[in-house]
Amino acid sequence: MALVRLTPICLLTYLCCFGALTSSVLGAKARHFKWEVKYMYGAPDCLENVVMGINDQFPGPTIKARAGDTVVVHLTNKLHTEGVVIHWHGIRQLGTPWADGTASISQCAINPEETFVYRFKVDKAGTYFYHGHYGMQRSAGLYGLLIVDVEEGKKEPFQYDGEFNLLLSDWWHKGVHEQELDLSVKPMRWIGEPQSLLINGRGQYNCTLASAHNSNGSGLPGCKFRGTERCAPNILHVMPNKTYRLRVASTTALASLNLAIGNHKMLMVEADGNYLEPFWVNDFDIYSGETYSVLIRTDQNPTDNYWISVGVRGRQPATPQALAILHYQSTTASKLPTLAPPVTPRWNDYNHSKSFSNQIRALAGSPTPPVINHRRIFLLNTQNRIDGYTKWAINNVSLSLPPTPYLGAIKHGLRNAFDQKSPPDTFEKTYDITRPPSNPNSTYGNGVYMLKFNSYIDVILQNANALNANVSEIHPWHLHGHDFWVLGYGEGMFSTKDEGMFNLKNPPLRNTAVVFPYGWTALRFVADNPGVWAFHCHIEPHLHMGMGVVFAEGVHLVGNIPNEALSCGLTGKMLMNKTYH
Amino acid sequence: MALVRLTPICLLTYLCCFGALTSSVLGAKARHFKWEVKYMYGAPDCLENVVMGINDQFPGPTIKARAGDTVVVHLTNKLHTEGVVIHWHGIRQLGTPWADGTASISQCAINPEETFVYRFKVDKAGTYFYHGHYGMQRSAGLYGLLIVDVEEGKKEPFQYDGEFNLLLSDWWHKGVHEQELDLSVKPMRWIGEPQSLLINGRGQYNCTLASAHNSNGSGLPGCKFRGTERCAPNILHVMPNKTYRLRVASTTALASLNLAIGNHKMLMVEADGNYLEPFWVNDFDIYSGETYSVLIRTDQNPTDNYWISVGVRGRQPATPQALAILHYQSTTASKLPTLAPPVTPRWNDYNHSKSFSNQIRALAGSPTPPVINHRRIFLLNTQNRIDGYTKWAINNVSLSLPPTPYLGAIKHGLRNAFDQKSPPDTFEKTYDITRPPSNPNSTYGNGVYMLKFNSYIDVILQNANALNANVSEIHPWHLHGHDFWVLGYGEGMFSTKDEGMFNLKNPPLRNTAVVFPYGWTALRFVADNPGVWAFHCHIEPHLHMGMGVVFAEGVHLVGNIPNEALSCGLTGKMLMNKTYH
Repeated sequence: MALVRLTPICLLTYLCCFGALTSSVLGAKARHFKWEVKYMYGAPDCLENVVMGINDQFPGPTIKARAGDTVVVHLTNKLHTEGVVIHWHGIRQLGTPWADGTASISQCAINPEETFVYRFKVDKAGTYFYHGHYGMQRSAGLYGLLIVDVEEGKKEPFQYDGEFNLLLSDWWHKGVHEQELDLSVKPMRWIGEPQSLLINGRGQYNCTLASAHNSNGSGLPGCKFRGTERCAPNILHVMPNKTYRLRVASTTALASLNLAIGNHKMLMVEADGNYLEPFWVNDFDIYSGETYSVLIRTDQNPTDNYWISVGVRGRQPATPQALAILHYQSTTASKLPTLAPPVTPRWNDYNHSKSFSNQIRALAGSPTPPVINHRRIFLLNTQNRIDGYTKWAINNVSLSLPPTPYLGAIKHGLRNAFDQKSPPDTFEKTYDITRPPSNPNSTYGNGVYMLKFNSYIDVILQNANALNANVSEIHPWHLHGHDFWVLGYGEGMFSTKDEGMFNLKNPPLRNTAVVFPYGWTALRFVADNPGVWAFHCHIEPHLHMGMGVVFAEGVHLVGNIPNEALSCGLTGKMLMNKTYH
Repeated sequence: MALVRLTPICLLTYLCCFGALTSSVLGAKARHFKWEVKYMYGAPDCLENVVMGINDQFPGPTIKARAGDTVVVHLTNKLHTEGVVIHWHGIRQLGTPWADGTASISQCAINPEETFVYRFKVDKAGTYFYHGHYGMQRSAGLYGLLIVDVEEGKKEPFQYDGEFNLLLSDWWHKGVHEQELDLSVKPMRWIGEPQSLLINGRGQYNCTLASAHNSNGSGLPGCKFRGTERCAPNILHVMPNKTYRLRVASTTALASLNLAIGNHKMLMVEADGNYLEPFWVNDFDIYSGETYSVLIRTDQNPTDNYWISVGVRGRQPATPQALAILHYQSTTASKLPTLAPPVTPRWNDYNHSKSFSNQIRALAGSPTPPVINHRRIFLLNTQNRIDGYTKWAINNVSLSLPPTPYLGAIKHGLRNAFDQKSPPDTFEKTYDITRPPSNPNSTYGNGVYMLKFNSYIDVILQNANALNANVSEIHPWHLHGHDFWVLGYGEGMFSTKDEGMFNLKNPPLRNTAVVFPYGWTALRFVADNPGVWAFHCHIEPHLHMGMGVVFAEGVHLVGNIPNEALSCGLTGKMLMNKTYH
């Protein structure tokens, strides 16, 4: 097997072709991008397949910016019949809630051949990504990285000599339109486990790079690459005795992942755009919607190369590990590592996962949470049936998004646009989370949690048993428009006495937090960002099946929403016909 | 093989469930329908596949109305991310051009979860159908029949004892999103011949109903049906010695078809909603976009049944015949015909096709064309390459539809909505139609042929050689908003002297006319219907690749276009922001 030099850095520098810089005050810049979204043929895992690309690239171009910059993406929809939006995952959209890129919530989907301009400030350095947020277009491959460096002249609280990006995703051979249908029919047809895991859009199906090692017992034949294949592995070219930052983001549709590097410990330093109190790990879990930065020291035998392996956690895996190569430049890139790839921890070793999650602390000096809350919302996560259709529901309400985006509807007082009744703040405390729902009926709904502006909100995410006995799944919940503090994780049913366990001293700020099977997760945030914000399980099929809620706060303070974001549904009607109300 | 009674009449009567009648003056009624479009699993040719259905039916429900009625379809888009429209093929939309159901032309596509109300008069009895007119949604299965009977108390110019509908289509196993992509990539990947032909949405793949006969030499095994299968054959249950009307419509994506019935001659009496001077045939060709009514007399041996066979014409067939059964009720429906199915004429026996087309005459007393024209537009049909992409072009312009529908754009004078330069009325007369284009470059365009209101327009459709040597394809051209008179067909390059051949006495009125390979077809119509009207090859991939033009006439006379039809593109912008112009 010959491997050419295909580095993620290539992807990064390529991006600059699309970015034109405009100077601005204080060194901040407006960075303009002209993007076209369309389907294209790709070969994410060597098998040719339809992918959703941006400017003929899959994954989409990496955006590089500095904190304080304004990113301006002119997004043109070149799909034939589908709308499209792009969500800038982790960017809080302070002052620009209409640029959050969530269909039905922040804007109308962009129609074919039309252009929408996303203009927003990246106020905080960190590792972010972007992705489709309409139907299951993220699963179709509509994603890419958004890297925000510190302001010019400022420093990170750690040092490194070089950096690499690893965008993790999972891949199905079945197209997303059929996946959407499968999840929507009665009885539901589960999409199953992904065929492949991808690193920067590259995976290998039906062959393994590590055929010399039987560590994974896959029995797969070795991949035969010349190195020019679109699915040839990622190679991270490093110099010995340096420190490198790996920025890792997971935009998987389903899979919870674990990443490890042969012989190299990793120092966790950033999560979701917030600095961590550094701690060393041999491997770490990453759930869909999360990002991490880790530092590695290239202090191992420089005449060898090392595997970077990514495997599945939390679900009985049916997908081989994804592999990349850490290549010490003193050797040749085509030399395969001598050591076997690191073995992913057993999928259901949740103690391993919890131990990792519980180690995550904010870097000293980070903002600390208010010590009180003004409102506590309990959200019971259940799998349910509605008229025989399998759904996910929160407090027995399965989210069914309306055609009019909430942001415009609330701002303009269009009461017919969605259920005016607020969904419940809690659930029956006698609910037995250890068994399949005894009354598995829930309802569709699209009501909104109206949050008092600037109030302190607690959310207790409560996991439960799914429809099948002895099954409770992992759900990584992602909040738009905010970071939240993760106050704690617990087992079983949350009870008030668990408050004593809350970490109010140095809880990490995140935008995504996992809820473990049969457990709970406690979050706190300040409802200080005028807008309407999705809060949902980041597992694409779960969201598609209704697993989310909508928060709104201070919408009266939202500035002028561009008409382009309002041209559908009742806001469109209202604007076109001023007599409508 | 046991066959149960599955008659098209079932489909017809089922429809009534969705139709509520509202009385109106003069016996005319408003017929209301509430439809939801979504993807569903079907098995059009026994293989399970995704189809686009209406109210969980594929094909969509048959609309039955009487001339003078108003049809009101409340169409709700239940697709996840795609827009949708429905075109009422053959209905002229007198006074309601915004209800023509052509995305980019008469209206904005309906967004997911939104409802558009199609309200239009069916002014003329006849056999019509409806279908998607956005992307390739027709190919996905979005179609159904629209049958308009004569007004109550009025009579057809022929008599019959019963009637059956045969909606013909072709079917691919590859989904339309992938087909669209295949046609759009460089180099183009041709979608190939259909896997199956369908009669009322039913075909049989990889098996044949007529295994007892080797007439088609298919070598396919016999189909094993219990009769309840969704792909079990259509059976037309007839009584001996009666006259039946068969209404036949073709909504194929690609295939030109021929229909024949064992031992039964057919009397052609109607085409595209216009009466014909009756003539007998043993078989007839039907191109995509056409409808015919034929009368048959059940005067054959009543102890036998007879095959109805449908086969491919004009392209080297790779698709087996579709078969249905004419069942004499004196026998059992499960008795297969003794005689072999009629053999479809050789695919390239164009003389057979031309002879049929030339026999078609309007019934005596039908409207006759003006004897003069005010403007003659020559439209050269060529296959071209633009930047390496394979396209079809008319006078070297490949139609690329704009995001703002023309109807609203013209009515409101939005000059940026489309090319203001009119496309050419003719082409270089030295063009050699017998060879591949020597200069195969054409351009994209979206200009409009502005027709003087009430003027008499001639169109000469001129066929030519495609990109490959010795290939010239059949193109059935369909005009929206009008019927036209088919003045004649000819071979080679049209020349003025060919005018002498024009039939001005009793040319048939049609909305679709075929252009034969290397030939021309001459049409005349009166531009008397205020609106903007597509005129295009009805082969779905050809239209997708640019094979169409746009006519506009009397748009200043168009009444108030519903805002819902204008909420996209520049009309949407204009209506939402009155300062735009």
